[in-house]
Amino acid sequence: MDARTHVETRARAAKAVSADLAVATRAAKDTALRAIADALTQRADEILTANARDVEAARAEGIPEHIIDRLRLDEERVAAMADGARNVAALPDPIGEVVRGSTLPNGLRLTQVRVPMGVIAMIYEARPNVTVDAAAICLKAGSAVLLRGSSSARQSNTAIVGVLRTAIESAGLPADLICQIDPTDRETTEQLLRARGLVDLAIPRGGAGLIQMVVERSTVPVIETGVGNCHVYVDADADLDKALDILVNAKTHRTSVCNAAESLLVHKAVADVFVPRAIAALRDEGVTVHGDSAFQAASDAVVPATGDDWAREYLSLDLSAAVVGSLDDAVRHIRTYSSGHTEAIVTESIDAAHRFSMLVDAAAVMVNASTRFTDGAEFGFGAEIGISTQKLHARGPMGLPEMTTTTYVVTGSGHVR
Amino acid sequence: MDARTHVETRARAAKAVSADLAVATRAAKDTALRAIADALTQRADEILTANARDVEAARAEGIPEHIIDRLRLDEERVAAMADGARNVAALPDPIGEVVRGSTLPNGLRLTQVRVPMGVIAMIYEARPNVTVDAAAICLKAGSAVLLRGSSSARQSNTAIVGVLRTAIESAGLPADLICQIDPTDRETTEQLLRARGLVDLAIPRGGAGLIQMVVERSTVPVIETGVGNCHVYVDADADLDKALDILVNAKTHRTSVCNAAESLLVHKAVADVFVPRAIAALRDEGVTVHGDSAFQAASDAVVPATGDDWAREYLSLDLSAAVVGSLDDAVRHIRTYSSGHTEAIVTESIDAAHRFSMLVDAAAVMVNASTRFTDGAEFGFGAEIGISTQKLHARGPMGLPEMTTTTYVVTGSGHVR
Repeated sequence: MDARTHVETRARAAKAVSADLAVATRAAKDTALRAIADALTQRADEILTANARDVEAARAEGIPEHIIDRLRLDEERVAAMADGARNVAALPDPIGEVVRGSTLPNGLRLTQVRVPMGVIAMIYEARPNVTVDAAAICLKAGSAVLLRGSSSARQSNTAIVGVLRTAIESAGLPADLICQIDPTDRETTEQLLRARGLVDLAIPRGGAGLIQMVVERSTVPVIETGVGNCHVYVDADADLDKALDILVNAKTHRTSVCNAAESLLVHKAVADVFVPRAIAALRDEGVTVHGDSAFQAASDAVVPATGDDWAREYLSLDLSAAVVGSLDDAVRHIRTYSSGHTEAIVTESIDAAHRFSMLVDAAAVMVNASTRFTDGAEFGFGAEIGISTQKLHARGPMGLPEMTTTTYVVTGSGHVR
Repeated sequence: MDARTHVETRARAAKAVSADLAVATRAAKDTALRAIADALTQRADEILTANARDVEAARAEGIPEHIIDRLRLDEERVAAMADGARNVAALPDPIGEVVRGSTLPNGLRLTQVRVPMGVIAMIYEARPNVTVDAAAICLKAGSAVLLRGSSSARQSNTAIVGVLRTAIESAGLPADLICQIDPTDRETTEQLLRARGLVDLAIPRGGAGLIQMVVERSTVPVIETGVGNCHVYVDADADLDKALDILVNAKTHRTSVCNAAESLLVHKAVADVFVPRAIAALRDEGVTVHGDSAFQAASDAVVPATGDDWAREYLSLDLSAAVVGSLDDAVRHIRTYSSGHTEAIVTESIDAAHRFSMLVDAAAVMVNASTRFTDGAEFGFGAEIGISTQKLHARGPMGLPEMTTTTYVVTGSGHVR
């Protein structure tokens, strides 16, 4: 079967049963989610056996160990996936929520109600736990899901999807609400992105190549996730001890994530004091600073920044750094190079914090806090399906409400115009 | 200058000043909107002279009279445009609205705040009043606007944009917040849709050709508007008098608009009584019914429906019509052929109304009311920039809040993870 036929067949099957889920009660959905959790625990052996084969194949292909670590499952990780499904069951049902409502002058009663998207396609890489997270969130949000994982996790994901489908069927919901898309055929990703009328929303989670394909080729609605060129700006009115803590945490707490800091901007008024302290503290953590002339002048350990450095998402122990003349210069720099993920300002000034927040044009602004806090769990959303860096529909960490759309229900008694 | 350079130059100019508007107070924006209203009234003669040249040119080209009527301005229409700008000034400022907020367990204070999109591109046809509406709404929503009208309204729009730019400049805002894009070069539309990084949102208002180009070629975020294949479903539990009023109003009140009814579905339990009444009432209004076999059997005046009729947006005194076996059959028919705009059910049954509302998958559902009510003004939004038929970001009539995005502002006191 060619990629297009494969994707269309699965998408039609999912679409056909999506209406059943649109009218399912919260109780029915939560029962299915708890069945998923129980089944993952009971059938952990099957999943671990399949995963061991994926790990073995990855090792044979010479895939780097840190990627294999993301792929690898153990009993603890399977238990965490089961807990994830139970957590989603515990969250309020977004479907049916009345977003706004009023009675119009002519007596018509207007309510805007959350309803399901329909069919959501998830395109993601390595980690098999995303399979369970995405399926659980989409199910609770009333949508069928098409899961297109990476080929390296094929056997793990096949085992997991098998468990999920059996579990929801045992709970009285159609198995086709959760469909796997063949990850061994590269073409299936593009076909998912072009299944207009069958896929209501696609969420790609991956690198720059995937995002580029999405931008150029997709005809279905898409939410882009993930790229984070996050800045820490140390203002003239900063508490420099807080600034140092926040900088080091944002850069080094975990380097491979999208909410890690990649660039430091320091107001010239505090540069003489702060720049040497920052360089020393970062050096202690093994960070290479790619600095402008002011940073270079402060230490021989600073590598000269090139034009490319300002826009780079290193995802490593590297940081670009510059001294700026004013808050507005910092804002201009960020507006030029930022990916619109998270920008932090360290300042004691209310006015500076407000102006920075309104101008940087990002999904999240941290005032005197580490960029690492941009995260669905940290924000208290209970479940997260990714962090949107686009402005349309959802911006920042996405939970259940972001996976829904709305319908205006207008009730009259024979009203005509 | 080629189309790409033209669009990029205007878009960069708009982007450069968009930050000024992001931090403008409501007072500053309302002053500018009232200046627009005053200037339109004072300089009506210039606008009417330019418009007369457009009308003359359109007539010379043999453009049909009903299109010319949409193009034509008079003093009353210019006054209505000025009133539109004043109405937008009177609406609450969406920018700065706190959508949600909480204090997290670690003491971080989280607020999700409405912020401007940045630069919005409007692509629209004939009517020059859209120029003022779009500019006023975008300005109030804090975004710069790129206006790409139709070539037939070029001189009118050039005159209007000139008035708007002078007016906002006199009120202390940069003229480049409102930029006109050359409508004589067909290529400029595509360049707007591909100005990634410069255009934050594009709103195309036009026919199927434009929408197709948007789907296939755009790389910027888009909200699709307008196509309406709206159904009226007469349920087994309908009050048939209400049903007749609603049907006739939805079909004939105004035929050329997207919220006009294009298709009638009748439950078999009431078909014997309702179908002949509907045919007679529609014939009195000059409507041609394209019916299924049941409708054909009821009257010789019924034209046999072909497969194409069910998906057609006639925008004329034509209506497709069929008898269905159940509410769920009606839902299935609508889910197959609908454009997701507005679907109406006529029923006295609460359960039927609820099931229909949750299942038809449309921007708006009318219960015992005409489809004609799906409209920003009717919904009390005060201003409308179009009706979205997509599920992402905005669905249904779009007012000021739909023209914004949000930022999470997270405030701590040196918080790190």
